[in-house]
Amino acid sequence: MTENTNNIRVALIGGSGYAGFEVIRLLRRHPNAELVGIYGPAQEVGPITGFYPLLDKTVEMEQELYDVAKIAGRADLAMLAVPHKVAMSYVPALREAGLRVIDWSADYRLKDAGEYEKWYCPHTDAGRLEEAVYGLPEYYTEQIAAADLIANPGCYPTCAVLPIAPVLNAGLIEPTGIVVNAISGITGAGKTPSAAQHFPHRNENFEPYAVGTHRHMPEMEQVLTDLCGKDAEVLFVPHLCPMDRGMLCTIYARPVGDVSAEQLTEVLQAAYADEPFVRVRTDVLPATKYVSTTNFCDVAARAEKDTVILISALDNLLKGASSQAVQNMNIMFGLDETTGLY
Amino acid sequence: MTENTNNIRVALIGGSGYAGFEVIRLLRRHPNAELVGIYGPAQEVGPITGFYPLLDKTVEMEQELYDVAKIAGRADLAMLAVPHKVAMSYVPALREAGLRVIDWSADYRLKDAGEYEKWYCPHTDAGRLEEAVYGLPEYYTEQIAAADLIANPGCYPTCAVLPIAPVLNAGLIEPTGIVVNAISGITGAGKTPSAAQHFPHRNENFEPYAVGTHRHMPEMEQVLTDLCGKDAEVLFVPHLCPMDRGMLCTIYARPVGDVSAEQLTEVLQAAYADEPFVRVRTDVLPATKYVSTTNFCDVAARAEKDTVILISALDNLLKGASSQAVQNMNIMFGLDETTGLY
Amino acid sequence: MTENTNNIRVALIGGSGYAGFEVIRLLRRHPNAELVGIYGPAQEVGPITGFYPLLDKTVEMEQELYDVAKIAGRADLAMLAVPHKVAMSYVPALREAGLRVIDWSADYRLKDAGEYEKWYCPHTDAGRLEEAVYGLPEYYTEQIAAADLIANPGCYPTCAVLPIAPVLNAGLIEPTGIVVNAISGITGAGKTPSAAQHFPHRNENFEPYAVGTHRHMPEMEQVLTDLCGKDAEVLFVPHLCPMDRGMLCTIYARPVGDVSAEQLTEVLQAAYADEPFVRVRTDVLPATKYVSTTNFCDVAARAEKDTVILISALDNLLKGASSQAVQNMNIMFGLDETTGLY
Amino acid sequence: MTENTNNIRVALIGGSGYAGFEVIRLLRRHPNAELVGIYGPAQEVGPITGFYPLLDKTVEMEQELYDVAKIAGRADLAMLAVPHKVAMSYVPALREAGLRVIDWSADYRLKDAGEYEKWYCPHTDAGRLEEAVYGLPEYYTEQIAAADLIANPGCYPTCAVLPIAPVLNAGLIEPTGIVVNAISGITGAGKTPSAAQHFPHRNENFEPYAVGTHRHMPEMEQVLTDLCGKDAEVLFVPHLCPMDRGMLCTIYARPVGDVSAEQLTEVLQAAYADEPFVRVRTDVLPATKYVSTTNFCDVAARAEKDTVILISALDNLLKGASSQAVQNMNIMFGLDETTGLY
Repeated sequence: MTENTNNIRVALIGGSGYAGFEVIRLLRRHPNAELVGIYGPAQEVGPITGFYPLLDKTVEMEQELYDVAKIAGRADLAMLAVPHKVAMSYVPALREAGLRVIDWSADYRLKDAGEYEKWYCPHTDAGRLEEAVYGLPEYYTEQIAAADLIANPGCYPTCAVLPIAPVLNAGLIEPTGIVVNAISGITGAGKTPSAAQHFPHRNENFEPYAVGTHRHMPEMEQVLTDLCGKDAEVLFVPHLCPMDRGMLCTIYARPVGDVSAEQLTEVLQAAYADEPFVRVRTDVLPATKYVSTTNFCDVAARAEKDTVILISALDNLLKGASSQAVQNMNIMFGLDETTGLY
Repeated sequence: MTENTNNIRVALIGGSGYAGFEVIRLLRRHPNAELVGIYGPAQEVGPITGFYPLLDKTVEMEQELYDVAKIAGRADLAMLAVPHKVAMSYVPALREAGLRVIDWSADYRLKDAGEYEKWYCPHTDAGRLEEAVYGLPEYYTEQIAAADLIANPGCYPTCAVLPIAPVLNAGLIEPTGIVVNAISGITGAGKTPSAAQHFPHRNENFEPYAVGTHRHMPEMEQVLTDLCGKDAEVLFVPHLCPMDRGMLCTIYARPVGDVSAEQLTEVLQAAYADEPFVRVRTDVLPATKYVSTTNFCDVAARAEKDTVILISALDNLLKGASSQAVQNMNIMFGLDETTGLY
Repeated sequence: MTENTNNIRVALIGGSGYAGFEVIRLLRRHPNAELVGIYGPAQEVGPITGFYPLLDKTVEMEQELYDVAKIAGRADLAMLAVPHKVAMSYVPALREAGLRVIDWSADYRLKDAGEYEKWYCPHTDAGRLEEAVYGLPEYYTEQIAAADLIANPGCYPTCAVLPIAPVLNAGLIEPTGIVVNAISGITGAGKTPSAAQHFPHRNENFEPYAVGTHRHMPEMEQVLTDLCGKDAEVLFVPHLCPMDRGMLCTIYARPVGDVSAEQLTEVLQAAYADEPFVRVRTDVLPATKYVSTTNFCDVAARAEKDTVILISALDNLLKGASSQAVQNMNIMFGLDETTGLY
Repeated sequence: MTENTNNIRVALIGGSGYAGFEVIRLLRRHPNAELVGIYGPAQEVGPITGFYPLLDKTVEMEQELYDVAKIAGRADLAMLAVPHKVAMSYVPALREAGLRVIDWSADYRLKDAGEYEKWYCPHTDAGRLEEAVYGLPEYYTEQIAAADLIANPGCYPTCAVLPIAPVLNAGLIEPTGIVVNAISGITGAGKTPSAAQHFPHRNENFEPYAVGTHRHMPEMEQVLTDLCGKDAEVLFVPHLCPMDRGMLCTIYARPVGDVSAEQLTEVLQAAYADEPFVRVRTDVLPATKYVSTTNFCDVAARAEKDTVILISALDNLLKGASSQAVQNMNIMFGLDETTGLY
C-alpha cells in the first residue's frame, strides 16, 4: 500500500479472530485507510500470520501488546474487535486519548445500562452509553458521521432490522409478535474450540440454540423501537447451520390490514433505493451464497396466510461485523460509504 | 437372510432413489419381512448395485421390469417408492391383484380430490381416497392395522404434526396462525441432478424455497384438522440446508391463555409416553444429528414472548419416509411396531 | 434384545468415543451377543445417552466405573476402547480375571516392545505382546479363533494392508518403496475439541499431517513383512478431509517386471473370493460413500507408467475400528464372521 | 470504476462459469484494467447477474453475443474462458483482429498437435501452437511479456509444476517416476449439473478419478521437460474432495543421492525468493484453507524413507485459473505482476 498522508490511520485491537482477519484484508484494499497497528493481550503478541497463515507474504505486521499511548500516537481510529466487557474496559482510555472508536462488541449497543446488566454483566462505563451511536449505516448516517464512539451492530440484529424496519415504519406490520427465525454459519460462534463446534459434532448437524433467550434479542427490540417510534417486540430463535459463513433470517409478522407481497416489496425498494448495500430481491430469494464475501444484505418479502414473511441474508463476518465497521468508518471520515467495499 | 415361511413378503416398486435404498437395508435386517423383488421402469432395470454400489455383496437383487402379475404372485405387500402421478397409475391394479399397498407418494394423502388437483394434478383414482389410511403410526394405529392402502406421510408433515398435534388437542394453542419454519438435508430433493443441487451451488449455502406454497402445507392442515377437530391453518416455509440428511422444524403458535414450557412439555410427554419413536427432549434441544439414521422424531417445547415454540427433528429418509413405512408395515401385519427398527 | 443364555456377554470399556458409540449400536443388532456393561473412568460415569443423545430410548445403560471384578462376573469378552497406554494398564488384570480381550488401541499391535517405545512410550506389559494376535480377520483367522487377546488393527493399516498384501504375496510388487497416500474423515481425530478440528478451521480445508512420521507406518510394515515374508518398507502420508467418516488409500508401488491392471485385479479377486468383507471393484473405483456405514473394505488396482496403483476405502469407525472388532469377536466365539454385520 | 484512458481494456469471453465469475470480481478491483465487455453464445446472453446473483448492484453488465468485430473495437485483450475446442475456433479471428489473447482452455498448452489430438481431439489451429506462450509466470516471464497469445495453465499443472521444477532443476530428484497425488474442490468440475456432482452423492464422499489418464498429465510432463531439459515422466492421480474450492498435491519423487528436507526447502526458497505468489512453508504444511481466495501457491518439502515428498496447495479458481490469468495480463502489459492481486 502506498503511503498517503491523508489516509485514515486505523488501529485494530484484537486481530486474532475471524472478523479481525476480514478487516485486515479489507483495509489492505482500502484506498483511503491504512492499518497502522494491531494490538492484543500479552499471550497473543506475535506475527499476525501466526493466527492466519493465509496472510503470509501480504501482511507482515505483528500483533503488539495493547498500549493506549502507542495507539494514540499512531492512529485516528481504533477498531475494537475484543469480547464484551473487555471493550468497555478499553474505551474510556482510548476516547480520552482522542481516538475515535468503533467497538464491535455489545458493550455500547444497549442504551440502558440496566438492560445491559440483565443480559450481560454490570456496565462499567455507563456514562458513555448516551454518546455512543448505533452503527447501522442505513439508518443512523448523520449520527455516525459525527460520532466519536460507534457501537457496531450485532450480526443478527443487522440481518433482522434491515428487512423489518421499512415495513414497520410504513405501518404494514404490527410492532409486536414479530418472530425472527435465524441461522448462522459457524464462524459466528468464534474461534475458540468447543465440543459444540467440534467438526464431527457440527458437520451434518442443524440445531437451534438460545431459543428466545439470545442477547441479540433486546438489541433488535431497542433499534426497532427507536426507528419506528413504537414498542417493538421480537421473539428471536437462532440456529447453527453446518457451513463456515452466512446468516439468513426468516421473519414472521402480523400484517396491519390487507398487505400484499407487492406492497411490501415496494416499501422495501423505496426504503433502500439509495442504499448501496441493501438489495431487494424479487427474482431469486435471498440465500447465503449470494451475499458471501460481500457487504450486502439481501432482503425479500412475501405475504401468505395472513402473515408477512420477510427474508434476509448477509455474510456474518462482513456486513455482520467487519465490512459494516468499514462502512461506518467511511461515513465517519467523510468518504463515500462504499469506498473499498465494492 | 434365512427363509421363513411366515415372513411378510415385500415388493419394492422404485428401488433407485435414496429412500428406496434405505428400505432395502431396513428390510435386510428385519426379522419378519423379506424383500422378494424390486421393480422399476424399463430404463432402470438391472442390478440394484448399479444404483447403489454400497450394496454390493449384500444385495444381489435386480430391479426387474414392473409387472403386476409377477408381483402379485410373490408378494403380500407393495411398497411404492415412485413419484406422485405414477403411484396412482399403479395402485388400482396392485389392489385388484390383492396386494396391500404402502404408497410413499402424495397421491393418497389428501382426502379431497379437488384439493389434490389444486396442488398436484387431476386425480385418476379418486375413488380410492376414502379407503386410503394416512400412515402416521402415532395417531392412526387401528386404521393402519386394518388398512389395505396406506398413504405414507410426507417428511415435513410428519416432522410438523408430531409436535403440534398434542398441544393443539390439549387446547394450548390456537389452530390458526401456526407457522412451520423447516429445514431439510439435500437428499430430500431427490436423486436427479439439477443446478439447484449441484455441489458448488448448494454447499455453504442456506436458502428458503416454496415460501408458503409448498405442497406439504395442505397435508399438514388436513391432518391437524382431522386430529384436533378444528380447522387448522398452517403457514409452511421450508429451507435447504447443506447436509445430506436430517430435517428440523421450528414451529411458532399462539398460546390459548397463559401457557408455560413446562405445561407444553408435560402434554408432549403424556401424548408420547407409550410411543416408541417419539422422544420429548428436555435436556438437549432436538438436533438433526441426534436422530440421524434412526426412526425417531425428537420434540421439545418452549414458551417465550407470548408465543409457543415447538421444535422437532427427524431423519428425512427414515422417519420421514422409509422406516416410517416399515413401522406402518409392522402394524399392518400384526407385529410389534418397533420390529427391525431399533 | 431377547435374553439368550448362549449369547456372548460383552463388556465395553470406554463408551464415550465415536467408535464406542458404533459398537454399542452394532451389538444391539447382533443376534448372538449382548452388551452387558459399559465402563469408564470416574469423570465419565453416567447414562450413555449423556454422551450420545441419539441413543435415548434405545440404550438405557449407564457407563459404570471401571472395575475388573465386576466385569469378570458379568462378561466373557472385554472390548477395550481406551487410549494407548491406558489399554496396557488394564489388560493384565482383565486377562488374569479370565476375560478374553479385544484391544482397540495400539498397545498390542507392534510385536517389538522397542519399536513400540520408539513410536509411543515404554511398554509396561511387553510379556504379553507375543500372545496377542493381530486382529485382521482376512489373514489371521485361525489365530484369532484361538486368541485370548486381540490387537484390533489401526484404521489406516487395515485400509492399506488389505489391497497391498495379495499383490505383494503374489510377487507383483517390490516390498520396498511402497507409498501409502491416505485421507481420513474427521471422526478419526477423536472426540476431544481442538483448534485443528474446530469446524471453521476444518471445513473447506484439506491438509496433510504427520508426513512420513505417523505411528501407523510401523504397524503397516510389520504386518506386511509378516504376511509376505520379506522386509516391507512403507512411506505413509495421511491427510484430513472435511467429512465425518470415511478413509481412502491411494497406494503406489513398484511392479516386479511387467504387471497389468488385469493381473493385479485377478490376484485381488483370487485373494478375496471367499472373504465376505472385501470387495474388488472393477466397475466403479472405491469411494468413501460406497463403504460408509458398512464393514466393507473396497479395493481396486491399476497399472500406469510403470507403477502399480492400489486404491482402497473403508469406514474408519467400522471396518477401521468397531465392526472389525465385532468380526474378530465372531471368529473368536465360533460364529460365522458376518453375524450381525451385513 | 473511474474511467482511465490508460487502462487495459479487457473482454471476457465466457462469463457464466466459476472462474469467469472470479475474474469479473478481480478486474473490478484492478487499478489498471477495465472489463469492457462479456461475451457468450446466443443461449447465454443476458445480465451477468442472471448467472451470479451475488454480483447484483456491483456488476451491471450484460453478457453479449460473441462478436469479434465488436470486441476488437473495444478491447486490447481477450480472456477466453470457454471450453477447449471452442477456444481454438475463436482464437484465429481474435488474433487477426489484433487482440492479445489469454486462453484458459487446453487448446494452446500442448506444443505438439499430435499429442493434443491424442488427449483431446484434432487441432484446428495447430499453426499457432508455436507462437503460444505457456502462462506460468514464475518461469516464462519474459516470453509472457512479449506474448500475444497465452495458454493459461491448467490448475493441476500449476499446482504440480511449482514445487517440482526447482528440485528437478537442482538435480535433487529423478525426472522419471514422479507421482502427483492430487485433490480438488468441486468447482474444478465446472458448473454443469451431473450425477457425480449432485450434492448428496458428492458430500461426505472422497474418490479418485481418471487414475493415470487425466489430460493434465501430458501438460505436466511437457512443462517439466521444457524447464529441466530432461524427459520428465509423471504419474498423475486426481481425487475429488467434498468442498467448494482448493487444490492440494502430494508429490512423491526419487531422490538423486542423499537428499534432506532442509536441502529441498533451501532449493525451493532460493527459487521463489523473488516470486510474489509462491510461499515456501516451513512452519505449517500447505493446506487449502491457507490459500483460499488468494493467488498464492504454497509449497513445502520433506524427505522420508528415501523418497522426496513435495506438497503444494492453491485455489483452483484463482492461481489455478482466473488470478493467474490476471498475473499474466499484468506482465503482458508491463505492470507489476502483483497489481490488483494482493
